[in-house]
Amino acid sequence: MHPIQLFDPESSTFTYILRAASGREAVIIDPVDKQWERDTLQLDRLGLKLAYVLETHAHADHVTSAGKLREMTGAKAAVPSGCCIPPADVQLHHGDVLRFGDNEEIKVLHTPGHTAGSMSFVWHGNVFTGDTLLINGCGRTDFQSGSAGALYGSVTNELFTLPDENLVWPGHDYSGQSVSTIGWEKRNNSRLANRDKQSFIELMGNLNLPRPKLIDIAVPANQNLGLPQGA
Amino acid sequence: MHPIQLFDPESSTFTYILRAASGREAVIIDPVDKQWERDTLQLDRLGLKLAYVLETHAHADHVTSAGKLREMTGAKAAVPSGCCIPPADVQLHHGDVLRFGDNEEIKVLHTPGHTAGSMSFVWHGNVFTGDTLLINGCGRTDFQSGSAGALYGSVTNELFTLPDENLVWPGHDYSGQSVSTIGWEKRNNSRLANRDKQSFIELMGNLNLPRPKLIDIAVPANQNLGLPQGA
Repeated sequence: MHPIQLFDPESSTFTYILRAASGREAVIIDPVDKQWERDTLQLDRLGLKLAYVLETHAHADHVTSAGKLREMTGAKAAVPSGCCIPPADVQLHHGDVLRFGDNEEIKVLHTPGHTAGSMSFVWHGNVFTGDTLLINGCGRTDFQSGSAGALYGSVTNELFTLPDENLVWPGHDYSGQSVSTIGWEKRNNSRLANRDKQSFIELMGNLNLPRPKLIDIAVPANQNLGLPQGA
Repeated sequence: MHPIQLFDPESSTFTYILRAASGREAVIIDPVDKQWERDTLQLDRLGLKLAYVLETHAHADHVTSAGKLREMTGAKAAVPSGCCIPPADVQLHHGDVLRFGDNEEIKVLHTPGHTAGSMSFVWHGNVFTGDTLLINGCGRTDFQSGSAGALYGSVTNELFTLPDENLVWPGHDYSGQSVSTIGWEKRNNSRLANRDKQSFIELMGNLNLPRPKLIDIAVPANQNLGLPQGA
């Protein structure tokens, strides 16, 4: 079982559609505001009914279409409880299991570090890692209650303890890659493989990345599911 | 079973990796020359061994990496017998079944029209349609022995007789879509749904598309698996 992977070239964001093996229900992870028509059309082409819109975190680089998709499809919005997204229908906690379709289960892992509330989702040997673990990299940890130490713990204690053959589907990629595996990232990830916590914290502390252009718009918008304030 | 879908933004070409359910073998369909490093890295990340490089046709808009991947991985190149690609290891004919992994079967369909030799490939309820059938469109039919009448026959007699729920994975998309279904295309494809053959031939005859920029380089290169002439 693989997800359908969709890409927003403007923000290099991956959106994922998970189809139930039996039944017509689906879940979408991290949809992008400007792509809501593409995504509803994609669901229609596949004959799918959206059960949940899932967010891995409150993004700083693009706005979600979660609220819009909820409005259009009747799906429920399910979000990490630590991300301050009050209008969501479901506040997720570590260890929760989200069910859809006839027999589908998505296991919820709290993987803080990129943001304090960030979560990853496990489904049929696939892990959707948001901005916690990227292919041969990881999300930045210098804003939104980010913490390099927490990210190191999330990756080494949660994600890298998943089976090696689990597929890693990240929230972004900037070099045309699509998917990786836990085993490959454990052995080769340029930031995290064979590195101790202190060295990782130093590495992340010295990245000197520019402030995300959209952060002041995107974070408050995403904490309202991408809907206008007051909606 | 879904394929891994990769995208080349320069030519808007999709490349697909098919993983065997059991065993480590894989097949790649329509790889792009400039993406060979991305693709070998992608195979490496998934721990896969390439059994075949498959071409749907001799492309006019980009050059294949089939020869390069064969050289790098030891995979066999399998191509449509009507596409004049003599250095391939396997010349495919309509009805052939290509086997890989422990129990994987790819069924070969001759679907001429975009080019005279074009083929589509069926695997586990997925059909890889190359430039014969695109999402809400189809490939052009005005060069390389293209024929609108033949394309109409290929789509209506071969592709549209597959089960409605079969997933359609096209050779290109220019609007961010990833995948469709036979059922959706039968009902909604803007060029082919609810249209008779004569009307389709007229439509295709009036497209007045510009000549592909790369055609004089790409077609001879692709007829040599993307390798330098004489190699």
